[in-house]
Amino acid sequence: MRIKIINPNTSKATTDAIAATARRYARAGTEIVTVSPISGPLAIDNYYDEVTASVGVMEEIKKGLQEKFDGFIIACFTDPALRASREVSNVPVVGIGEASMLIACTIAHKFSILSMPKSSAASMQELLIRNGLESRCASIRLIDVPVSEIGNNLNETRKLLLHEALEAMKNGAEAILLGCAGLTGLDKEFEKELGIPTIDGVVAAVKLVECLYDYGLRTSKALTYRIPKSLQSDQLPRHV
Amino acid sequence: MRIKIINPNTSKATTDAIAATARRYARAGTEIVTVSPISGPLAIDNYYDEVTASVGVMEEIKKGLQEKFDGFIIACFTDPALRASREVSNVPVVGIGEASMLIACTIAHKFSILSMPKSSAASMQELLIRNGLESRCASIRLIDVPVSEIGNNLNETRKLLLHEALEAMKNGAEAILLGCAGLTGLDKEFEKELGIPTIDGVVAAVKLVECLYDYGLRTSKALTYRIPKSLQSDQLPRHV
Amino acid sequence: MRIKIINPNTSKATTDAIAATARRYARAGTEIVTVSPISGPLAIDNYYDEVTASVGVMEEIKKGLQEKFDGFIIACFTDPALRASREVSNVPVVGIGEASMLIACTIAHKFSILSMPKSSAASMQELLIRNGLESRCASIRLIDVPVSEIGNNLNETRKLLLHEALEAMKNGAEAILLGCAGLTGLDKEFEKELGIPTIDGVVAAVKLVECLYDYGLRTSKALTYRIPKSLQSDQLPRHV
Amino acid sequence: MRIKIINPNTSKATTDAIAATARRYARAGTEIVTVSPISGPLAIDNYYDEVTASVGVMEEIKKGLQEKFDGFIIACFTDPALRASREVSNVPVVGIGEASMLIACTIAHKFSILSMPKSSAASMQELLIRNGLESRCASIRLIDVPVSEIGNNLNETRKLLLHEALEAMKNGAEAILLGCAGLTGLDKEFEKELGIPTIDGVVAAVKLVECLYDYGLRTSKALTYRIPKSLQSDQLPRHV
Amino acid sequence: MRIKIINPNTSKATTDAIAATARRYARAGTEIVTVSPISGPLAIDNYYDEVTASVGVMEEIKKGLQEKFDGFIIACFTDPALRASREVSNVPVVGIGEASMLIACTIAHKFSILSMPKSSAASMQELLIRNGLESRCASIRLIDVPVSEIGNNLNETRKLLLHEALEAMKNGAEAILLGCAGLTGLDKEFEKELGIPTIDGVVAAVKLVECLYDYGLRTSKALTYRIPKSLQSDQLPRHV
Amino acid sequence: MRIKIINPNTSKATTDAIAATARRYARAGTEIVTVSPISGPLAIDNYYDEVTASVGVMEEIKKGLQEKFDGFIIACFTDPALRASREVSNVPVVGIGEASMLIACTIAHKFSILSMPKSSAASMQELLIRNGLESRCASIRLIDVPVSEIGNNLNETRKLLLHEALEAMKNGAEAILLGCAGLTGLDKEFEKELGIPTIDGVVAAVKLVECLYDYGLRTSKALTYRIPKSLQSDQLPRHV
Repeated sequence: MRIKIINPNTSKATTDAIAATARRYARAGTEIVTVSPISGPLAIDNYYDEVTASVGVMEEIKKGLQEKFDGFIIACFTDPALRASREVSNVPVVGIGEASMLIACTIAHKFSILSMPKSSAASMQELLIRNGLESRCASIRLIDVPVSEIGNNLNETRKLLLHEALEAMKNGAEAILLGCAGLTGLDKEFEKELGIPTIDGVVAAVKLVECLYDYGLRTSKALTYRIPKSLQSDQLPRHV
Repeated sequence: MRIKIINPNTSKATTDAIAATARRYARAGTEIVTVSPISGPLAIDNYYDEVTASVGVMEEIKKGLQEKFDGFIIACFTDPALRASREVSNVPVVGIGEASMLIACTIAHKFSILSMPKSSAASMQELLIRNGLESRCASIRLIDVPVSEIGNNLNETRKLLLHEALEAMKNGAEAILLGCAGLTGLDKEFEKELGIPTIDGVVAAVKLVECLYDYGLRTSKALTYRIPKSLQSDQLPRHV
Repeated sequence: MRIKIINPNTSKATTDAIAATARRYARAGTEIVTVSPISGPLAIDNYYDEVTASVGVMEEIKKGLQEKFDGFIIACFTDPALRASREVSNVPVVGIGEASMLIACTIAHKFSILSMPKSSAASMQELLIRNGLESRCASIRLIDVPVSEIGNNLNETRKLLLHEALEAMKNGAEAILLGCAGLTGLDKEFEKELGIPTIDGVVAAVKLVECLYDYGLRTSKALTYRIPKSLQSDQLPRHV
Repeated sequence: MRIKIINPNTSKATTDAIAATARRYARAGTEIVTVSPISGPLAIDNYYDEVTASVGVMEEIKKGLQEKFDGFIIACFTDPALRASREVSNVPVVGIGEASMLIACTIAHKFSILSMPKSSAASMQELLIRNGLESRCASIRLIDVPVSEIGNNLNETRKLLLHEALEAMKNGAEAILLGCAGLTGLDKEFEKELGIPTIDGVVAAVKLVECLYDYGLRTSKALTYRIPKSLQSDQLPRHV
Repeated sequence: MRIKIINPNTSKATTDAIAATARRYARAGTEIVTVSPISGPLAIDNYYDEVTASVGVMEEIKKGLQEKFDGFIIACFTDPALRASREVSNVPVVGIGEASMLIACTIAHKFSILSMPKSSAASMQELLIRNGLESRCASIRLIDVPVSEIGNNLNETRKLLLHEALEAMKNGAEAILLGCAGLTGLDKEFEKELGIPTIDGVVAAVKLVECLYDYGLRTSKALTYRIPKSLQSDQLPRHV
Repeated sequence: MRIKIINPNTSKATTDAIAATARRYARAGTEIVTVSPISGPLAIDNYYDEVTASVGVMEEIKKGLQEKFDGFIIACFTDPALRASREVSNVPVVGIGEASMLIACTIAHKFSILSMPKSSAASMQELLIRNGLESRCASIRLIDVPVSEIGNNLNETRKLLLHEALEAMKNGAEAILLGCAGLTGLDKEFEKELGIPTIDGVVAAVKLVECLYDYGLRTSKALTYRIPKSLQSDQLPRHV
């Protein structure tokens, strides 16, 4: 099967890191393609960046349908444009935020989300509510560093995040979700450090898309995700 | 004071209808300017249209700051790009969905939302949750007509909507919210027909922006609506 | 238009302070009349005081209808007798607790309530639930001083309240609501001190009643607020 | 032990019916005294009646403390002035709405409330929320007859109520609560007719007050129900 | 009347302590019989122990029906097998967790649960949700001692529990629930120490079963608690 | 990898059907072993059956650990003994109810559960709450046939279920969950008939266990799922 992973920001370093993670865990037979939109924000730190990035995501989904991918992943933890993508697409689309949470539910009673910056609390809260999973979240732990700067001093970022994770564990966290695609690849290192399962949404999403493909499940077009009327004239390929 | 009302879709007829409503209820001394984005969907029927329209809304907010408006209104009931606009702007931004609900709370224990198409149920539900007002909503009543077609046969649309409103009233609706900017101007006619308060979000939003201006309140920049880092270089005017 | 503001307690100092605030923000053309009931508690510190005060509020509403006011405000943050007043009245009635919260929703994602005494936590919680706005409240911060004593040492009270507000801000408060009519007038001073919007419910309520008047909205008599049967014989004027 | 049951309305017929029910189920050794306030509404149909009745309830509680009762019952299903009474009293106070629901929880997964008039839906909903028991309520079934008129044609009222109860049972009701003191005494007749447990709040409250007395439990004065400051000067007897 | 109290664990010391408590508060005329299952865990510390203990509880309920008891009590705070017991039994079954919470609701706005070990947080949370009473719980305070070891150093356990109770009181606890049958008998001592009502579930359950017996209420067989099909052939006595 | 699927009831026909489904969707390299407990109920229709079946589930989990399985599935939709199994096991355990819901969340905004008998409504509701997914469920549609009898007249059962599914779709269902292991294998037939995704929990669980294995995730032992103290002496193999 072929999965297209869309990194909604335009940081090539992040796109490459996502590709490395996805390929490490994809099954033999799963081809991974990663892209970022041609234009858009370098990092997604707030609602404004999300608006800008969403347009790019939609373009990549539409291109991807013509390229006949079997599934899509939106690789930003707040799952920008996920619902719109599900309307447009006739094959599964999974967000890494959603995927992290769903997988966490099978191995922990309560999880905590580790992310940045502090101002994204409302956005993270909405992600939980949109997915209906507030009661499964022990806490949202945020460090006050912009996403675009986490790479500047990765050692310091790591230290700050581990500190928050330990605080989360004192208050009921039984699994940790890496709440930003920019943290991809840190899961096993954190798991070792913390002693509790740590989930990288890129992996969770790749595995879920493989699941859906194996089972032959596609997004329901019954109500919420009907194909947009404004798209019908676009004559997108419908290889359903 | 000067209010810029952004109709997120590109239907000139709708923009004109919004302008007429707003001017009818604006106070002497309130100047109303209405715009739609240069490009974007003709109507907002789904999440995909919302993504496209949101970019245009952001452009108009940014232009509006340079034009030194005292407040903004986003004239689409699901309040697209409202949070992003609040980040960018240093003067109040109000959405017509939000405004309708807040005003309804002062005159009714429970309100119902009247809108279209049926597939927008999830989006309307999210609007309620985002605003924390699920418990105040008796029902969401949707007719299965695309927003872009409500004008084609306005008599039929009116009849279908009134039917839904009467059903809502049997199940606890004490006020009706016109859940689409395309219905602007029907409030008093519906109120007369139904015998219960009917709210046009355009009016509600104009009155609320006037309130905020009179009181000298501006969007809190403390956390959720901090000015986006990616915008700081844009050197937007800050006439705070 | 003419607004009657009912201070449910019998403290003349508070009634005068409320009048001063209301007049400062009322539009030209809005006449403000403030009253307190003939008898009742000097301050509302608990449910018992609320019961006593509620009778006085009802009397003032009934008198106010004969005096042909265009709207009423109940100037106590827990909104005593608000629902009963809406049943009796045929023009809008707004409570300052409700008004503060609704206005706050347009400028902040989460607000905190600043009030007293500590034993009023349950009552404040109920105010939130009755309005359906628990999810918009970051915290209720209470100092353990009886309402009747806040004037005894206003400097100390101010200091204690500012301390609580700063704690609230560390935990997500983006706007502060002054949770007691006895604090009227402190809004702009606190706003300056704290750096985030601070809302005085008296102002919020005056502006909302003006809104409702401009828009021609009245309390829905469809269900919850039907005119009480036991009142129908009283032959109250119905200038609807 | 001695229990004072306060019928918050002034209908002597209702007070007598309450007394008959209470005495039928009180244990040997439990003395029942029933009263209604000197003045107040003949029936409690809405929030306005509740305000008026509440003052009378408080007077009777205060008198009852001097008469050294061991417990109080407020015999109106929406539990008017219950919280204020708990502040004032140093012995247990139980409302019949609350008591019905708590007892129902031990014998049924979900109960339904049977009451009148239709406009009391909001008030019943609040009763559930105040007690935290929304999730245990299958439905609130209301007939549109004012409380004051249920005795006019009791046969018709009974028929209407039984019809609603049967509808409730089709939608998950496993026990029926008689949602009005005016229905006292109909429990066993309804139980026989419907085949499911039917609860008369007067009985439930008498049995709960006996429980609390046997166990030596009194209302917590730790926070919510502290003795009102405004009462402390009244020198009520404190036979704690 | 005759009540059978089932201690789901096999600790004879606990069964004896439960018997002593129950007899101290039972009315003259109430006969108390206490048992533990023949086999099962010595203490219930987790879900695994609960599964094992539940089978024993069911056996004792079935025996108890043949012994013609008038009511049953399950004396473990998480109420293991309570729902299954209600299906099987034709007389009331009450759990001590449920009973503690329901009784607490009549004397306090918010209660806290005091128990052990720390890993039982999820189980306690479920108890609250199953009963619909999350909003009445101020906090769950757990010490990290296994139930089986609380007797080893009772003085230390007491000290740890009192410390947690004081912390709970600082955060809104107005009554304390002893969250484990192994703590039976400590209620009045804790109440004296803490100054707020402290509830022993064994007492609460005995008093509630007496209530239900006096009122002639039995578990509803309408839906959730229908007699299991797989039991119908067992020809259990049905002395309904 | 090797997965042990435990059918908690003792119906060989059901166990065989589960095996057939699991093998159809398992990946090459996944070995499926299916068992039922030696004794227990023939079908799980109620809480009583669940208690009996749970003991058998625990025995099979413990045996399975000695047999060195890489993951377990509990194949009954209400997920009996799932939490206890997670305590005992050191490899992933997934329930088919949980798995169905989590997978459904990736392809539909709202799902409906199709099951039987009517009395299991409370149990299904608890399943949703325990998983935190009430807001994702459009409806629980139950037919009043005991689980043990669905095979007696499969055509009739199918017809009744399809009727309920169509009703669910009129009220917002976008995917259908087969809410009973006894319905395994009907998914694709129903999907074709209904036109919306239909999920068989056995498939969903197999795919999720494969995911967890691929990713190397194990149940968190941090808090809720700590290894039971009462088991530690049993010297179960710990091939972690």
